[in-house]
Amino acid sequence: MPCKLPSSCNTVKPDLPTYLKSRCNIVDAALREFLPTAKTRPATIHDAMRYSVFAGGKRLRPILCMEAAEACGGKYEAALRPSAAVECIHTYSLIHDDLPCMDDDDLRRGQPTSHVKYGEGIAVLAGDALLTIAFEILADVKMSSRGRYNVADLVKELAVTAGSRHLVGGQVLDLEGEGEDVTLTPTELKYIHLSKTAALLTTSLRLGAMCANATPRKLEALTDFGTNLGLAFQIIDDILDVTQSSENLGKSAGKDAATDKSTYPALFGLEKSRAEAAKLTEKAHLALNPLGRKAKRLREIADYLLDRDY
Amino acid sequence: MPCKLPSSCNTVKPDLPTYLKSRCNIVDAALREFLPTAKTRPATIHDAMRYSVFAGGKRLRPILCMEAAEACGGKYEAALRPSAAVECIHTYSLIHDDLPCMDDDDLRRGQPTSHVKYGEGIAVLAGDALLTIAFEILADVKMSSRGRYNVADLVKELAVTAGSRHLVGGQVLDLEGEGEDVTLTPTELKYIHLSKTAALLTTSLRLGAMCANATPRKLEALTDFGTNLGLAFQIIDDILDVTQSSENLGKSAGKDAATDKSTYPALFGLEKSRAEAAKLTEKAHLALNPLGRKAKRLREIADYLLDRDY
Repeated sequence: MPCKLPSSCNTVKPDLPTYLKSRCNIVDAALREFLPTAKTRPATIHDAMRYSVFAGGKRLRPILCMEAAEACGGKYEAALRPSAAVECIHTYSLIHDDLPCMDDDDLRRGQPTSHVKYGEGIAVLAGDALLTIAFEILADVKMSSRGRYNVADLVKELAVTAGSRHLVGGQVLDLEGEGEDVTLTPTELKYIHLSKTAALLTTSLRLGAMCANATPRKLEALTDFGTNLGLAFQIIDDILDVTQSSENLGKSAGKDAATDKSTYPALFGLEKSRAEAAKLTEKAHLALNPLGRKAKRLREIADYLLDRDY
Repeated sequence: MPCKLPSSCNTVKPDLPTYLKSRCNIVDAALREFLPTAKTRPATIHDAMRYSVFAGGKRLRPILCMEAAEACGGKYEAALRPSAAVECIHTYSLIHDDLPCMDDDDLRRGQPTSHVKYGEGIAVLAGDALLTIAFEILADVKMSSRGRYNVADLVKELAVTAGSRHLVGGQVLDLEGEGEDVTLTPTELKYIHLSKTAALLTTSLRLGAMCANATPRKLEALTDFGTNLGLAFQIIDDILDVTQSSENLGKSAGKDAATDKSTYPALFGLEKSRAEAAKLTEKAHLALNPLGRKAKRLREIADYLLDRDY
């Protein structure tokens, strides 16, 4: 299935959709190359891995990764492997989050989720395999021996973010925060959003920057940008769960309210949530100042994410 | 829970149990250091990770890893991080294999399995977190810049072995091979054993050897040793499932027969299976020749594993 991208967008420069589409194609080609073919033995697992990876994601994380490399004066090609790696991590986390023992979702990106199509056992294993292959893909990155960072730095960055203190940890808190007798405080909610969403977006940017041998100052700027962008992204995601149809989102809408999940819209209402997302996007813009004009696309992407309707 | 080790063993040199016990303690200390404390936020996941890691495993893989480093002329301390990493991978694979959607086991190492104690969601996430932290631990290995191998080589080695073509792939075939209407051929069974068991034992040895800057010849010898040792180990495991009690094994015995699983004893009977395990152990011994006297402990471990009763 091709990447899901807008045919038009009012608030951003007209060539952004075309640019995103071309980047999407680059990421898809890289993933096709790095993932074993669906015929590689055992065929079931490779088929299941590819099914979820090529289910039509926005490829936001890989695009941010490549764009960060360019914003730091490097070439996007240098960040191809980390881009594919973060998409594998993202896809694994969706497969496991959708399992019956977690969020129990049947629909993702408009398609049956992995456990619906392949059964729970294979879905768990497909997630495991995608998590694992992310590190295999990363291990083969070619880094300059005279640069500031090496492959070990990339592996550490991704492992810490994907691990128990961030991505996995966020899902734990999310699981524990469900149910009508639990109401999270705004601080707890922000912590979950930072762990589950902002951390991987930020790491995507940082990995790209590291592949471009970014200065510590630029790396810090992208970290700040990613944190604010990630928080805004999650708030918008929760708003869309309330305001949009399952058909438009490609996943089960209205789920948060049905499961009494604590979200920004549930805690503060839609209007305040929208204002908060806008404020965070503004902070994200400010964070990019040290990168100057080279960060033009990152600014456009931040605006595009704020205004999206899916 | 302390490591489960024999108080005596007839066929090996008398100091092996003492040696294994001391190595076990070293591995446990390393794991205690590398894993976040049970109080680290979110506490549930770190508690669950430690619960399974410290449930009293034999620490065979880390011991092989450290021993391979010494057999190649290095120090075991150089292989501490890879040792902890392979144990995290092993523990994650047990947690996920025991899930209701896989082998559905309630007992492991004499304790309730992770999903019985923490629920399925947390068990999936504890496995995910242990798989991930293995790479975090590996990323911090200090390798000599003048050696043959670097951290990227270690990460690649572990990721390939843990991934869809080996460890995960073996579990897929194992899942697909269950049920009364499926009988695997000996070739298929060997393929599963190579993927599920021999691959991680071999990689444990190879990682240790790489940390000792092993020559390609020694690395090849250990690969050959690990393959034969791993096959023998799995056959013995399947024999013990038939001949021993759940109490002695610390996990559900008789499970293979109950689920019509294809195993060596099921295909060839106990006697032929024992003979095959002995033959493979002999091949493992031969493979160690290029390592000379430094491989004494590895030879002892191979004999000990052949004669174990749990």
